[in-house]
Amino acid sequence: MKVHLLAYTAMPEKVVAGAAKLCYSDSDVDTLMEGLTEEKTERFVRTLSEVGHESPVEHASFTFAIEGVSRSFLAQITRHRLASYSVQSQRYVRLDNFEYVTPPAISEDPETLRVYEEAMRRDAEAYDAITNHLKEKYTAEYVAQGLSAKSAASKAEKRAIEDARFVLPNACTTQMVMTMNVRSLRHLFMIRCCNRAQWEIHQVADEILKLVYRVAPTLFESSGPSCVALGRCPEGKMTCGMFAEVQEYYKRLKEEIDNER
Amino acid sequence: MKVHLLAYTAMPEKVVAGAAKLCYSDSDVDTLMEGLTEEKTERFVRTLSEVGHESPVEHASFTFAIEGVSRSFLAQITRHRLASYSVQSQRYVRLDNFEYVTPPAISEDPETLRVYEEAMRRDAEAYDAITNHLKEKYTAEYVAQGLSAKSAASKAEKRAIEDARFVLPNACTTQMVMTMNVRSLRHLFMIRCCNRAQWEIHQVADEILKLVYRVAPTLFESSGPSCVALGRCPEGKMTCGMFAEVQEYYKRLKEEIDNER
Amino acid sequence: MKVHLLAYTAMPEKVVAGAAKLCYSDSDVDTLMEGLTEEKTERFVRTLSEVGHESPVEHASFTFAIEGVSRSFLAQITRHRLASYSVQSQRYVRLDNFEYVTPPAISEDPETLRVYEEAMRRDAEAYDAITNHLKEKYTAEYVAQGLSAKSAASKAEKRAIEDARFVLPNACTTQMVMTMNVRSLRHLFMIRCCNRAQWEIHQVADEILKLVYRVAPTLFESSGPSCVALGRCPEGKMTCGMFAEVQEYYKRLKEEIDNER
Amino acid sequence: MKVHLLAYTAMPEKVVAGAAKLCYSDSDVDTLMEGLTEEKTERFVRTLSEVGHESPVEHASFTFAIEGVSRSFLAQITRHRLASYSVQSQRYVRLDNFEYVTPPAISEDPETLRVYEEAMRRDAEAYDAITNHLKEKYTAEYVAQGLSAKSAASKAEKRAIEDARFVLPNACTTQMVMTMNVRSLRHLFMIRCCNRAQWEIHQVADEILKLVYRVAPTLFESSGPSCVALGRCPEGKMTCGMFAEVQEYYKRLKEEIDNER
Repeated sequence: MKVHLLAYTAMPEKVVAGAAKLCYSDSDVDTLMEGLTEEKTERFVRTLSEVGHESPVEHASFTFAIEGVSRSFLAQITRHRLASYSVQSQRYVRLDNFEYVTPPAISEDPETLRVYEEAMRRDAEAYDAITNHLKEKYTAEYVAQGLSAKSAASKAEKRAIEDARFVLPNACTTQMVMTMNVRSLRHLFMIRCCNRAQWEIHQVADEILKLVYRVAPTLFESSGPSCVALGRCPEGKMTCGMFAEVQEYYKRLKEEIDNER
Repeated sequence: MKVHLLAYTAMPEKVVAGAAKLCYSDSDVDTLMEGLTEEKTERFVRTLSEVGHESPVEHASFTFAIEGVSRSFLAQITRHRLASYSVQSQRYVRLDNFEYVTPPAISEDPETLRVYEEAMRRDAEAYDAITNHLKEKYTAEYVAQGLSAKSAASKAEKRAIEDARFVLPNACTTQMVMTMNVRSLRHLFMIRCCNRAQWEIHQVADEILKLVYRVAPTLFESSGPSCVALGRCPEGKMTCGMFAEVQEYYKRLKEEIDNER
Repeated sequence: MKVHLLAYTAMPEKVVAGAAKLCYSDSDVDTLMEGLTEEKTERFVRTLSEVGHESPVEHASFTFAIEGVSRSFLAQITRHRLASYSVQSQRYVRLDNFEYVTPPAISEDPETLRVYEEAMRRDAEAYDAITNHLKEKYTAEYVAQGLSAKSAASKAEKRAIEDARFVLPNACTTQMVMTMNVRSLRHLFMIRCCNRAQWEIHQVADEILKLVYRVAPTLFESSGPSCVALGRCPEGKMTCGMFAEVQEYYKRLKEEIDNER
Repeated sequence: MKVHLLAYTAMPEKVVAGAAKLCYSDSDVDTLMEGLTEEKTERFVRTLSEVGHESPVEHASFTFAIEGVSRSFLAQITRHRLASYSVQSQRYVRLDNFEYVTPPAISEDPETLRVYEEAMRRDAEAYDAITNHLKEKYTAEYVAQGLSAKSAASKAEKRAIEDARFVLPNACTTQMVMTMNVRSLRHLFMIRCCNRAQWEIHQVADEILKLVYRVAPTLFESSGPSCVALGRCPEGKMTCGMFAEVQEYYKRLKEEIDNER
C-alpha cells in the first residue's frame, strides 16, 4: 500500500483562517488576507477548533492517490460520502498476473499463508480460464456478426472480464484517487484511526494523517481517532480501553514529523 | 437477487406537488394541500419535469432492502453518494456455507460454470481453513490472557474472520438497506438502466424502477436510462446504438404495471 | 410562525431498527422485519445511540411546511446542506400588503415597536412605488415591441418585482417545504435548540422537535441542543453556562408530549 | 461586487486528467502523472466531457471571496448545497453606515433611484434607532446584574443588533468565502449564467467563470449556461429564445481571456 499526496488547496491554513475571520469582520478580503501572518493564522485556526466552529475548514481540500489496497478497503472507504473518488475499474483492466494484499496476521503464520497463497493462485487460474473461455466464445459470435478479428477480440475480452471478475477475491489490489476537504478528513481520522477499525483502512488513514499533518500541522494538530480528537470515546461499552496508548501513539506520530522540520 | 420496497414518504406525489406549488403561490400550506386533487397533482408533477425544475422531487424518498447481490454490486451502488446505506458487515457475519451470485453468461455455459463453481467451493474451503486456524491461535492467546473459554472463542472468531474474508470472491452475496430520494433515483436509473451498465446493477435498477413506478407512476413516468429520460444518449461515440429497442423495453415495463392496476 | 409535519417515512423507527439489525445479521429481510416488535425496535434504536452508530437513522426522513418565517430565518436554515428545500420565490409572488415577523423584544417595547412598524410601512410603500414605476415603464416597452397589453403587463410586473424586492426587509415572511432525515434533524437540534442560537430559528427548531418526538419518540428521546444530546457543551469558553435549565426545559417539553399519549 | 479567486487545487487540469486516466489504466500513479504532458492532459480532459464522464472533475476545487453582494444574492447562492460557505454574520458586524447594492435598472431611472435611496436611508436610520434604544435598555439590565459598564455595553449591543437587523433590506451587502469543485461550478454556470437568471447572481457567475477559465481553460472550455454547455435549453417552453446571442456572448468572453495569454 502506498499513499501519495497528489495536490491540495494552496495555502490551506491561511485560506481557512481568512474564511473564518471574514465571518466576524468588516474588513475587505485583501486587508484580511494581508493581515494574516503565519502566527495569526495559527492562532485563528486553533480558536476555531476550541469553539467548535467546524465549517471554515471545508475550504481546504486534499487529493490523494492510493495504490495497492484491497477491494475490501475500497468498500469501506467509499462509505465516506462527502468525498470524491476515481477508482480503477475491474471491468476494463486485465489482471493477468493479479496482485493482492496479504493481511499481516496471515503473513506471520506460515501454515495460514500457504493456504492463502494457494487460494490466490487458484483464483487467478479460474479467472484466466473463465476469461479465455468466454472470450473465445464471444469472439466467434462477433466475427459471425461481421466484425474484424481484432475488433471482435477486443470487444469479447471486455465482455468476458466483466463476468470473470466475480471469482476475484477481496484481496485483489486496486488503486484510486480520492479528494476530501479538511472536515471530512478529520471525520475519517476519528472513525478509521480508531483501535477498533479494520487494520488496512487504519493503516491508510494513518498514512493520510501523516501526509496532511506535514503540510498543514495546525489544521490537523488535534486530529486522530475520536478519543484523541474529542478527548473521549463515543463508542460507550464497545471502547477498546487503551486510551493512554492511543494518545501516546498519535502524539509521537506528530512529533516525528515535527522533528523532521 | 430480491428487492423489497420497505418504506417511503407518505403520499409522495402530493408532497412533491405541494412543495413545488408553494414556490409560486401566496396561499398557505393547508389551502395548497387541500386543493391538490389527484388530477392536479399529476398535472403539476408533469409540469415540473417539462420545465426542468428538479429539486421539489427530493422531498419524497424510498427505502429498499436488497438481498442476494454480489460484493461487486455493492462497490458500484455505493458510488451513488446522495443516498443512505446500511450494509451487512463481512466482519461480523460468519459465512460457513456461503452464498454467491452466478452471472447468467456463466450459468449458460456448462464448461465455464464448472470452473466457476469449483472456484467458489475452494474459496469457501480456504476461508474456513484460515478462519479455523487463526481462531484456534487467537483463542489460545486470549485464554492465556485470562479470558474464559467462551469469551475467548467469540473474540477470536471475530478477529479471525476479519482477515479470512480477504479470500472471499466478489461473487459472495450481501444484503443492504438503501434510501434514495426521487432525484437520486432518477439519476440512478439514467446511469444504471443503461444498456452499457453492468448486468447485475442493471437488473437491480430495473427492479427498483418497477417498485417505485407501481406506487408513484407520475413521478417516474419518464424515468429510465438517459436515452429514455432525456430523449438522447449523453455518451457520444460510446452509445450502444439501440435507442428504439431500449425505448420499447421501458415503455412495456411500465405498461405491464399499468395493466395490473 | 407555524410548522406542519407534511409527511414522513412510514414506520420510521422500525425502518431504522431493521436497517441497523441487517448489518449484523444473517437473516433475510422479511424475517428481520417480522421479528421487530415495538419493544425490540425501541431497544435496538436505543443501542444504536449508545454505541455511536449514526448512519442507520438516515433511512427515515421528515417533511415540514414552515410558514410565517423571516428572510433571516431562511438564510440561516438553508445553511444546513444535507436537506431539501422548496422556498416561496420573492421573484414571482406579489407582496402588496406584505407580512413581516416582529422580534419579541421589539414587540415588548412600545417605543421600539413604533419605529419598527413605521419602517415596515415605509418599506412596503417604497416597494410598491418602485414596482409600479418600473412596471409602467416596462409595459410601454413591451407594447412597443408588439406584445398585447395584458401579456406586456404580466411580463413587466415580473421584471419590476425582481428589482423592487431589494428594498424589502429581512423581516418579510416567507414559506417553505423542508425535508431532513433523522441524522440531519439531530444535528439541527444540536446547533439550533442551543441557548446561543438566534431566537427565531431556535423557536422553529423547538417546534420541529415537538412534531417529530410525537411520532418517533425513541428516535428523538435524547435529541436537543448539544448539551442535552451529548451531555456536554462543545463551545468551550463561549458556553451559555445554563446547563441545568436547558436540560430541564427539554425534559419537560418531551414529558408534555408523553403525557398527551 | 467583486470576486477574488483566493486559492485552488494545484495543477487542477493535471489532477483531473490523472484521476480519470487511473480508472482505465494499470500503471502506477507516478508513471501516470509523469506521462501527462500539457497536450495529453488537454486531450484527456476533453475526452471526459465528450463521453459524459463527470466525476473526475470533482478532484479540483476553487475558493472565492465575494464582496459587495446583496442578501438576495446570498439567499440564492447558498441553495447550491454541494459547496462550502463562510458568510459575514449580520449578528456580529455593526453596520453603522451600511452599504447596499443598487440594481442597474433602478440606477438608470432617476425617479426610481430617488425612492430607492430614500428607502435605504430611512432603513439605516430605523436600524440605528432600534439598535441604540435596545442597547441602552439592555446595558442598564446588565449593569444591574453586576457587569462592568464596558462589558455590559458590548453584550447589549450584540443582543440589540440581532433584532434590529430585521429592518435591514435585501439590498444590504455582505461578503463571503465560497468553495466549489469543478462539477459544482459547471452546474452553477448552467443555471446561473442563463439569460433567465436574476441579474446579480448572473453577474457573479460570469465573474467566476472568467476567473476559473483563466487558470483552467480546458476544464471550462464548454462551460456556460445550459444552452452553451449542453447545446440545448432544458427549460422547454420557458426558454429565452436567444440561443445565438448567448452562444456568441460566452464565445467572446472566453476569446478575450485567450487573447490576454
